[in-house]
Amino acid sequence: MNREKALEIVKEHLTEHRYIHTCGVMETSIELAKRYGADEKKAEIAAIFHDYAKFRDKEEMQTIIVEEKLDQDLLLYNSELWHAPVGAFLVEREVGIQDEDILNAIRYHTSGKEEMTNLDKVIYLADYIEPNRQFPGVEEVRELAKESLDQGLLKALQNTMTFLMKKNQAIYPDTFRFYNGLILNKRR
Amino acid sequence: MNREKALEIVKEHLTEHRYIHTCGVMETSIELAKRYGADEKKAEIAAIFHDYAKFRDKEEMQTIIVEEKLDQDLLLYNSELWHAPVGAFLVEREVGIQDEDILNAIRYHTSGKEEMTNLDKVIYLADYIEPNRQFPGVEEVRELAKESLDQGLLKALQNTMTFLMKKNQAIYPDTFRFYNGLILNKRR
Repeated sequence: MNREKALEIVKEHLTEHRYIHTCGVMETSIELAKRYGADEKKAEIAAIFHDYAKFRDKEEMQTIIVEEKLDQDLLLYNSELWHAPVGAFLVEREVGIQDEDILNAIRYHTSGKEEMTNLDKVIYLADYIEPNRQFPGVEEVRELAKESLDQGLLKALQNTMTFLMKKNQAIYPDTFRFYNGLILNKRR
Repeated sequence: MNREKALEIVKEHLTEHRYIHTCGVMETSIELAKRYGADEKKAEIAAIFHDYAKFRDKEEMQTIIVEEKLDQDLLLYNSELWHAPVGAFLVEREVGIQDEDILNAIRYHTSGKEEMTNLDKVIYLADYIEPNRQFPGVEEVRELAKESLDQGLLKALQNTMTFLMKKNQAIYPDTFRFYNGLILNKRR
């Protein structure tokens, strides 16, 4: 699928604000894919569709999680996590994308997981640092991302987990495993 | 075993500084056990022996972890964790204590785990807040501990996990599960 067609499809599912964010993630993903040796074309398509399900009703997402037998533990954790695995499911069903690399990058772009491919990591990090993002700590992650994909991700995860703990929120186990994996794999 | 005998045994295995800490944990554990309905006598003995293995050689602890088939993943994580499960093993073998409640409270006093008994929680929290402890955040945990065992523990865990992340250290999975459990069980 070419970029124009993909953007046309996704635009209908997003607010203006979220569409601008998506374009930022697309540009940043392509840059990071070049820098860290991921497939640029797959990065472009995964980025365009990463928030495809962002504005679905919670009830619809909950039904999909139950009926399609996605990880039921998702329902115990923040519903902000749901649009990623539900998005991967809907992008396959409604848009017809079947490339597992692209679908996985969409699936894990919010939670992360223990073993992430370079493409998964690129989408996760681009979503965090694309130019329209403004929040405390983002500039430090942007700088780290110029030198090392994993160092950028590590700082992003530390920020995210610290933020969740400050709000007394549970941390989805895959997110925790993504953090630990970045530390422990470095030593091996 | 009475308090005097227990203190006499443990004293030989500790530095003066650590012995004073142990006496603090003992007093605080008894207080917390009274307040939150754990067995005071078991709390006293578990507190006295909680750091029994603190000054064993790393090599000896490593050998015990391997030969006694303790969780092998311990070896991937900070060696500061090892004295707790190794301590439970040695307190049984060398001191002859066989009470599983006491041994578990020693075993989990550094890592925590997903499902902690009240006695486990009392020892964990007493170790964190006993009067000789001085570090940023301890006073806030002391205050919370007056009102709620779980709220005190939650703050202690948030401090500990944030500290580990700032040092780019991996977090032992049981510690993470203890944190998540405190949040998720509250909702049930």
